[in-house]
Amino acid sequence: MGVKLGILGLGTVGTGTVQLLQDTTDRNPLLQEVEIYRVGVRSLDKPREVQLPEGVVTTDLESIVNDPEVDIVVEVIGGLEPARSLILQALKNGKHVVTANKAAIARFGDEIFTTANEAGVYVLLEAAVGGGIPVIQPLKQSLSVNRIHAVTGIVNGTTNYILTRMQQEGSNFEDVLVDAQRLGYAEADPTADVDGLDAGDKIAILASLAFGGRIHLEDVYAEGIRQVSKTDIAYAEKLGFVIKLLAIAKLHASDRSKLSVRVHPTLVPKAHPLASINGVYNAILVEGEPIGQVMLFGPGAGAGATASAVTSDILHLVATLKTSTANPNPLLACRHQDYCEIAPISELVTRFYTRFLTRDQSGVIGKLGTCFGNYGVSLESVVQTGFQGELAEIVVVTHDVKEGDFRQALAEIRELSAIDSIPSLLRVL
Amino acid sequence: MGVKLGILGLGTVGTGTVQLLQDTTDRNPLLQEVEIYRVGVRSLDKPREVQLPEGVVTTDLESIVNDPEVDIVVEVIGGLEPARSLILQALKNGKHVVTANKAAIARFGDEIFTTANEAGVYVLLEAAVGGGIPVIQPLKQSLSVNRIHAVTGIVNGTTNYILTRMQQEGSNFEDVLVDAQRLGYAEADPTADVDGLDAGDKIAILASLAFGGRIHLEDVYAEGIRQVSKTDIAYAEKLGFVIKLLAIAKLHASDRSKLSVRVHPTLVPKAHPLASINGVYNAILVEGEPIGQVMLFGPGAGAGATASAVTSDILHLVATLKTSTANPNPLLACRHQDYCEIAPISELVTRFYTRFLTRDQSGVIGKLGTCFGNYGVSLESVVQTGFQGELAEIVVVTHDVKEGDFRQALAEIRELSAIDSIPSLLRVL
Repeated sequence: MGVKLGILGLGTVGTGTVQLLQDTTDRNPLLQEVEIYRVGVRSLDKPREVQLPEGVVTTDLESIVNDPEVDIVVEVIGGLEPARSLILQALKNGKHVVTANKAAIARFGDEIFTTANEAGVYVLLEAAVGGGIPVIQPLKQSLSVNRIHAVTGIVNGTTNYILTRMQQEGSNFEDVLVDAQRLGYAEADPTADVDGLDAGDKIAILASLAFGGRIHLEDVYAEGIRQVSKTDIAYAEKLGFVIKLLAIAKLHASDRSKLSVRVHPTLVPKAHPLASINGVYNAILVEGEPIGQVMLFGPGAGAGATASAVTSDILHLVATLKTSTANPNPLLACRHQDYCEIAPISELVTRFYTRFLTRDQSGVIGKLGTCFGNYGVSLESVVQTGFQGELAEIVVVTHDVKEGDFRQALAEIRELSAIDSIPSLLRVL
Repeated sequence: MGVKLGILGLGTVGTGTVQLLQDTTDRNPLLQEVEIYRVGVRSLDKPREVQLPEGVVTTDLESIVNDPEVDIVVEVIGGLEPARSLILQALKNGKHVVTANKAAIARFGDEIFTTANEAGVYVLLEAAVGGGIPVIQPLKQSLSVNRIHAVTGIVNGTTNYILTRMQQEGSNFEDVLVDAQRLGYAEADPTADVDGLDAGDKIAILASLAFGGRIHLEDVYAEGIRQVSKTDIAYAEKLGFVIKLLAIAKLHASDRSKLSVRVHPTLVPKAHPLASINGVYNAILVEGEPIGQVMLFGPGAGAGATASAVTSDILHLVATLKTSTANPNPLLACRHQDYCEIAPISELVTRFYTRFLTRDQSGVIGKLGTCFGNYGVSLESVVQTGFQGELAEIVVVTHDVKEGDFRQALAEIRELSAIDSIPSLLRVL
């Protein structure tokens, strides 16, 4: 008996998934039991890279999620609606759902998983984070025997590509962005990627799995890479760092009942495993007890990689359907309903890198030091790195400090007559 | 109802596993259903780091595998016997088995998995390869939707530690080995590690999972790191390589029905993801279609990491026992019975790095070139790198060549009067 799939969407990921399932030789033999039963598309006239038998393709997506013959709905249309409604309808109809939709899961996860649990079906989402990298299943299963302390990821390929090229070529953000758009590595509207919103969706999902609680997306602090300049990349390099857009979910330093969940450009020490992840690759570093550090690395996007992740979820469901579904499998079901408490970014304890442009008055370093000292900010290094025209450039790296305290000191420093501007403010891992 | 464990062995891994299971707060809640029911040890008098209730610890290991109350046997005594007999007896008694024993699985996998399949139970072995890194489950499950082309790993922490220190300090193999033994990173008898045998066991297991067939261990070519000198590490560095002991399982270049499975020190390009894996860390790079490259990285050994892997297997079995076991779960069971055909090392197609010591006669490079040419060996570079006393040192890097042809050329070259010796012969990735 075959397992019948209803695939919603035949874009890049949908096409990759169909191609994979139409060519199962030398793959897991369970895939031979999968039947591509219906594929829902927006237009029947668009040319397609895959051939499907007559009657399989339809523009009536609702008919797919309501078809009693369909066992598994694969949602790869993306976006919030109609994806959310179709997923919910499929679940209510007792169908398992596989989705690559990080935006919908990060926003409507509560509603979606509650509906799935009530219906006794599963929502699997390996493709939502890290493209082809197996990270969702390991976090739910193998790694869940650990007490997780932190999940730190490079989870957005577009920004990692841009930062890698800025570093390797000494180029400006704007120039690389234009080129990345031309080459198809960045979208025409790059906001979701370069402002850290896509990475925010993904770290919310990873945090939820790693720490066993749901996450309010509005609690996730997201800062993008528009402010990162080639000047900062060069200084970071001299100090022994590379700049990466990190997505971090971590137990709060002083109150371990809270989490810190955030996305921001970060100075990463060159010897750190994430420092050498370049280009469109993604990597997720999981730290826990007793395992220590484990890192999962691979292609963060692309038709093939994402199709591999989508199909791995289909495989898990086929295996489940072949055994018994009398009792829910606790390794596939969502096992939490409560929300995690997330500390505001002002409570974050971190090191900072800051670049100041100052009027070259004697004593400006002293004034900086005094202001920082008043708010308990202890400095690791203060270096006058050079001049920009009339202005002296000073780079400060702090020791660990509470972000709120640091911001207060900075507000005061901004008022000093010796300070022209503060072009960069970056956190240090 | 609890799931009852019988743990065989209370050494480093056994103790780590017991500690993990005795402290389940903030871990996967399924672990709370696990009861440490019996622990088998060799001596009751040895001081232990864990406290167990009266009656749990016994020296009668057979009584554990025969106890009808025991659901899962966790074999962490290591070695071939009595491990093999105890595993087989447990399986025949209908118990699931978790083992960290790569030596027993690599040698007796056929017997063990056949027995398990007949009894309708599972043998899980996440801890056998890559310490805490989730690699066995991903290969069996998520990654199995891909057509795997190659699995390339740094899977022996001891040799990677030694090579890393040789490279960073410019030290000799023998000196670093002695120090590694003193620090506990190498055993008193280092043979299994430094001669590549441990890595051979592990790549046999990985090959079996990745390519869906069993592996005769005697078909696996294993060459260790004793011949790697600081001179070669320095030359490799200049050529843009680091030297790593790689364990490789790959579709054969010209006949893709065969595999090439081997362990040898290898020149790895510095930009390759495996080049930056240092110290006792392990990493496994999986290449396949359509996923591309995925790398899994983490601690290759140690009580905590290995306990995490052992417990993740226990977790999978608890989940299985809680659902229904009426039908075998195809993602946990071993799904192949046939053996893979392995090509002999002479059929390997690879690049070579070779260092010659020659009597400084004019024309020696010409003679080398002619000999190689006679056997169709094409050279990428020939560099006279310097002198050692009276002897000139020449480093040759070839293009891809069949190993058998290369060896024939080398045998002829060895007879040339201009050649003093051939101190190094290494393959290039």
